[in-house]
Amino acid sequence: MTTAEKSVAVLGLGSMGTALAAALLAAGHQVTVWNRTPGKDEGLVGRGARRAGSVAEAVTAGEVVIVCILDYADIGPLLEGQGVGRAALQGRVVVNVTNGSPEEARAMAERVTALGAAYLDGGIMAVPEIIARPEAFVLYSGSREAFEAHRELLDTFARSVYLGEDPGLAPLNDLALLSGMYGMFGGFVHAAALVRSAGGPVAEFTTALLLPWLRAMAGGLPAMAAQIDSGDYAVTGSPLAMQVSHDSIGEVSRAQGVSAELFAPLFALMRRRVADGHGSEGFAGVVELVHPR
Amino acid sequence: MTTAEKSVAVLGLGSMGTALAAALLAAGHQVTVWNRTPGKDEGLVGRGARRAGSVAEAVTAGEVVIVCILDYADIGPLLEGQGVGRAALQGRVVVNVTNGSPEEARAMAERVTALGAAYLDGGIMAVPEIIARPEAFVLYSGSREAFEAHRELLDTFARSVYLGEDPGLAPLNDLALLSGMYGMFGGFVHAAALVRSAGGPVAEFTTALLLPWLRAMAGGLPAMAAQIDSGDYAVTGSPLAMQVSHDSIGEVSRAQGVSAELFAPLFALMRRRVADGHGSEGFAGVVELVHPR
Ligand SMILES: NC(=O)c1ccc[n+]([C@@H]2O[C@H](COP(=O)([O-])OP(=O)(O)OC[C@H]3O[C@@H](n4cnc5c(N)ncnc54)[C@H](OP(=O)(O)O)[C@@H]3O)[C@@H](O)[C@H]2O)c1
Ligand SMILES: NC(=O)c1ccc[n+]([C@@H]2O[C@H](COP(=O)([O-])OP(=O)(O)OC[C@H]3O[C@@H](n4cnc5c(N)ncnc54)[C@H](OP(=O)(O)O)[C@@H]3O)[C@@H](O)[C@H]2O)c1
Repeated sequence: MTTAEKSVAVLGLGSMGTALAAALLAAGHQVTVWNRTPGKDEGLVGRGARRAGSVAEAVTAGEVVIVCILDYADIGPLLEGQGVGRAALQGRVVVNVTNGSPEEARAMAERVTALGAAYLDGGIMAVPEIIARPEAFVLYSGSREAFEAHRELLDTFARSVYLGEDPGLAPLNDLALLSGMYGMFGGFVHAAALVRSAGGPVAEFTTALLLPWLRAMAGGLPAMAAQIDSGDYAVTGSPLAMQVSHDSIGEVSRAQGVSAELFAPLFALMRRRVADGHGSEGFAGVVELVHPR
Repeated sequence: MTTAEKSVAVLGLGSMGTALAAALLAAGHQVTVWNRTPGKDEGLVGRGARRAGSVAEAVTAGEVVIVCILDYADIGPLLEGQGVGRAALQGRVVVNVTNGSPEEARAMAERVTALGAAYLDGGIMAVPEIIARPEAFVLYSGSREAFEAHRELLDTFARSVYLGEDPGLAPLNDLALLSGMYGMFGGFVHAAALVRSAGGPVAEFTTALLLPWLRAMAGGLPAMAAQIDSGDYAVTGSPLAMQVSHDSIGEVSRAQGVSAELFAPLFALMRRRVADGHGSEGFAGVVELVHPR
């Protein structure tokens, strides 16, 4: 244990809340857990967690209160329920890692602050299996003071990234990262379908070809990002017009019995960009059609 | 120079053909170049390439003939034109890296073989800028004998990956990889649009958050690939039903003035999969809707 031991409450012992509580226990903190439905805390209690009989009991046992339940809408009633509210929350730090929208995070920050607690919104960039592993990270926004005071504690979950005082920043960046992930996953599904349609094993294709290829192509993203920031989409190598000159992915997919629907909107945007006179520019300019300046 | 010097013809000096010829010259090979429109070979000739006045002159100067032009349809006429055909091609190896479909590659292999030459189809997994750099690779399919005889020569372009005798395998896997890339790029564009809509610089987001996140999430692709091969989509962590329980990306995008069109087809498939009774399974099962077994 390298950090000072702290008292922490964890509300919500779904798969993520359980992983967070386990990481806190492993780091030597004093952890009190609560879950709506009983019976989910046995493993944690076996590892030293205290079981709270009510939200109020959990909250008053924790200098820091981690909230990790399914829906934002259910958090307010929880924190304002019997024996909780200002009496219990005053002076504590609420770290809410339930996924929501920037709007919801801002509203929750106001609500929690009005109850006398400091508020941090968290966006967990990990599945439960990789909590406390080096590839995971967690985005935070809201009270800078609370973040700085508890940074070491938060680092038990994963690398902590503080984005700013606006509580909406963590959910916004979280959703942006998720959309990046779903793009990659959608591309993977289509690639896998094509390979399977030709009888090939998908596992070997993924490990030997797709991962090195995605790694190489991800190397081009920072340059595209710089183009988006500057608005200058000039390229030398692969202009957009060349990229859409044939609908090879569509044609070959159809010939192989693979639906090309996942790519229809992207290619439509690429063609629209060419039609708008940007055919000699690079791919990144497509962003102008997704979010007009 | 580590490989034995060979005589190579390069037909087509667009941005890719030029990069390939430059790599061959740098490795010490004897390179003869031809391009339909004159004037594109000056840089290469300055570095030691021989200029051919006709396709026939180029082909007869090369033990290996690299073809790199824009359209498959134009290759046949080129190889069967004046002074070329069987007389010139007999005994040579044609390596065609022009992008096409598996069908086109198979037809071209028949045509070239009928003219007495061995045929290799190539799928270049690189932009011209990364030719001869470690992150690039080239897929080959067709004559195994030709591949083995010229492997070292081909390695000058990038790491060579031989996929099998069916000439259609290189273009099929090439298009599968491209679809993986376009998925990732589409996700990037949406993520960038969200970040920009909140006033954030896209460059910092991309380098500090998106790249580490995509790297972490790419780590899950081999397990998904194994599920696709086995047809068993059981998961513990993040079932599909949880992933589609909210349309957070769509809602927040609309609130930010960002079009959510890029994700509409993927989320529709995910919801369809849940409606079909697979909500407790993992994401990878979506492949069954893109390519029904
Ligand atoms: N799992 C992931 O990969 C992942 C990754 C990043 C972020 N997250 C986020 O983490 C949060 C929790 O996810 P999870 O995976 O742990 O979900 P989960 O396994 O489905 O667990 C849901 C938890 O929420 C509790 N809950 C639901 N409604 C409640 C209510 N009205 N009052 C009190 N508790 C309630 C459940 O309690 P009961 O036991 O009583 O039902 C359970 O503890 C979500 O916002 C999710 O988006 C998850
Ligand atoms: N650039 C990339 O990032 C990239 C990556 C992987 C694969 N590729 C593939 O590589 C091939 C070439 O691409 P590129 O980027 O070099 O294209 P490019 O820069 O547009 O050059 C096209 C080349 O094709 C020639 N050509 C076109 N029509 C012809 C015809 N009827 N007869 C003879 N030559 C003709 C052009 O000759 P003129 O000079 O006379 O017009 C030029 O040399 C394409 O199949 C492309 O898909 C490119």
